[in-house]
Amino acid sequence: MSRNDALLLVVEGRDAATPWIEAFRARLPGWRVVGLSDAFDPARVRHVAAWRHPYGSLKGLTSLDAIFSLGAGVDHLLGDPDLPPATLVRVVDSDLTARMTEWVVLHVLRHHRQAERYVRQQHDGLWSDDPLQPAAKDVRVGVMGLGVLGGDAAAKLKLLGFDVAGWSRTAKTLPGVPTFAGDGGLDAFLRRTQILVVLLPATPRTQGMLDAALIGKLARDGHLGGPVLINAGRGALQNEADILRCLDDGRLKAATLDVFETEPLPTTSPLWRHPAVTVTPHNAAISSTGAVADAVAAQILAFGRGEPLQHVVERERAY
Amino acid sequence: MSRNDALLLVVEGRDAATPWIEAFRARLPGWRVVGLSDAFDPARVRHVAAWRHPYGSLKGLTSLDAIFSLGAGVDHLLGDPDLPPATLVRVVDSDLTARMTEWVVLHVLRHHRQAERYVRQQHDGLWSDDPLQPAAKDVRVGVMGLGVLGGDAAAKLKLLGFDVAGWSRTAKTLPGVPTFAGDGGLDAFLRRTQILVVLLPATPRTQGMLDAALIGKLARDGHLGGPVLINAGRGALQNEADILRCLDDGRLKAATLDVFETEPLPTTSPLWRHPAVTVTPHNAAISSTGAVADAVAAQILAFGRGEPLQHVVERERAY
Repeated sequence: MSRNDALLLVVEGRDAATPWIEAFRARLPGWRVVGLSDAFDPARVRHVAAWRHPYGSLKGLTSLDAIFSLGAGVDHLLGDPDLPPATLVRVVDSDLTARMTEWVVLHVLRHHRQAERYVRQQHDGLWSDDPLQPAAKDVRVGVMGLGVLGGDAAAKLKLLGFDVAGWSRTAKTLPGVPTFAGDGGLDAFLRRTQILVVLLPATPRTQGMLDAALIGKLARDGHLGGPVLINAGRGALQNEADILRCLDDGRLKAATLDVFETEPLPTTSPLWRHPAVTVTPHNAAISSTGAVADAVAAQILAFGRGEPLQHVVERERAY
Repeated sequence: MSRNDALLLVVEGRDAATPWIEAFRARLPGWRVVGLSDAFDPARVRHVAAWRHPYGSLKGLTSLDAIFSLGAGVDHLLGDPDLPPATLVRVVDSDLTARMTEWVVLHVLRHHRQAERYVRQQHDGLWSDDPLQPAAKDVRVGVMGLGVLGGDAAAKLKLLGFDVAGWSRTAKTLPGVPTFAGDGGLDAFLRRTQILVVLLPATPRTQGMLDAALIGKLARDGHLGGPVLINAGRGALQNEADILRCLDDGRLKAATLDVFETEPLPTTSPLWRHPAVTVTPHNAAISSTGAVADAVAAQILAFGRGEPLQHVVERERAY
């Protein structure tokens, strides 16, 4: 690292990079921290930190060591045909993980404890409980994607008493949570799952995975009268036409979605007004600039001391 | 214990005792398990298991060892001027505790993550997040009442990241959770609390405790624009006129109430229709008959072996 080495911040949206540049300048004294509109020598840019960068904007950065994503997903980065061949690093910070788990636990509990039913009953002035309300231990939740986010959500749901299992592409183990892996383990995982929580990355293999065929394999024996889908992974996983069809023909009882094929969700989408759908505006886990900058700056400083980068993306599997 | 000893089940509501009688017969082979409408010798009744028994109905049970409450609260039992002088035992079962924690975590998260805001936004077709949404670690939750229920709720809220403190009448310690105690510790506890979770028993000292004076001491610095009250303890704790006044003048931002001064909540109560109030029909923790019967039958059998009763109520403090 020399005085002339630069960290380039590239973030979608006019002036959106400014708070990031300030956050990194405060954490990396001695570094030159620049945005695309600043004057800089492309050959001196050692690191990029990016979120939804304009495609092509990273071309010509010939001395790049690493590209850091400022969010959990790296699908946007990998979609750039002009992405330089540097090491790709996803952000893992405890703030983002905790926020995602808050959202997942909230929405699993909303379905499990029939929160919408009681909101309607209050509206109608109706005092009536459900004598058959099961306890969490009798409800089978399945978490797809067992990275840092899925692993934490599964652990917290387990602590709240749910009967949790997990599925991941490659075999993983979680304390006290049975896991399934790969195409071979998928059907058994789906057949036991009453509430499906999806925290998978968008990759060529997960594209459109949440379709009628997958939904049709979920367990139908739950107290809620059918399976529930909760997705905070990526919208690209969803076949929204299939999800709507399954909601209408009863294969799916309800869906809570934070991500969509197109975002913002178009005003014409029937998901907005479907009575069994909860829409949140891709805000399940918006980490604070400070927490993400802490995590990325710590990696940059460790790399400068000769330590290996953590949370490196394998380009061939796309996560 | 002899063949002629009896366990008497007394439960409010026509035929309401029947499933309880069946549950106890299955768990206490050799015992005579009866209801008020059965023929039995009052002098042979060794134990009573009761929930909202008709006052006076336990009079004349001269050989009673213990009266077991079938729910967490014992205020109804203690209100009976003709209650026999037997040992009073509250029920503690892990099923009821887990259900209460589900309800508490759901409703704390609903406020923290502004669930109602996003429901309204969906209704309006509005895609908009809150860039200032704090993480749980920056939200101070206070749990009043640190018995089995309050202790478990505090522990789970802490695991989800909230900045949790607790208050109880007599000093208690919880791992990783600062605690306050007694009248001397109450103001400091309230001044730090943004979301107040109440799991206190109804006693002469807690009667009407949730009033304007108490609410006015809560912290006003939260992201939600004012403090939030969540009560699943007992309705007798509430001064509902004060709660409504505080909601209307801004001292309280929102309230989620599972219990009420009068239950079912009268149709004339403004709480039903107040936009900042969530009403649930005293269903936060309705344990299953089987789980409660397991816990009580285990105590009866242990007592029969000469072991001391657990969870004995101190009549003078009323919990």
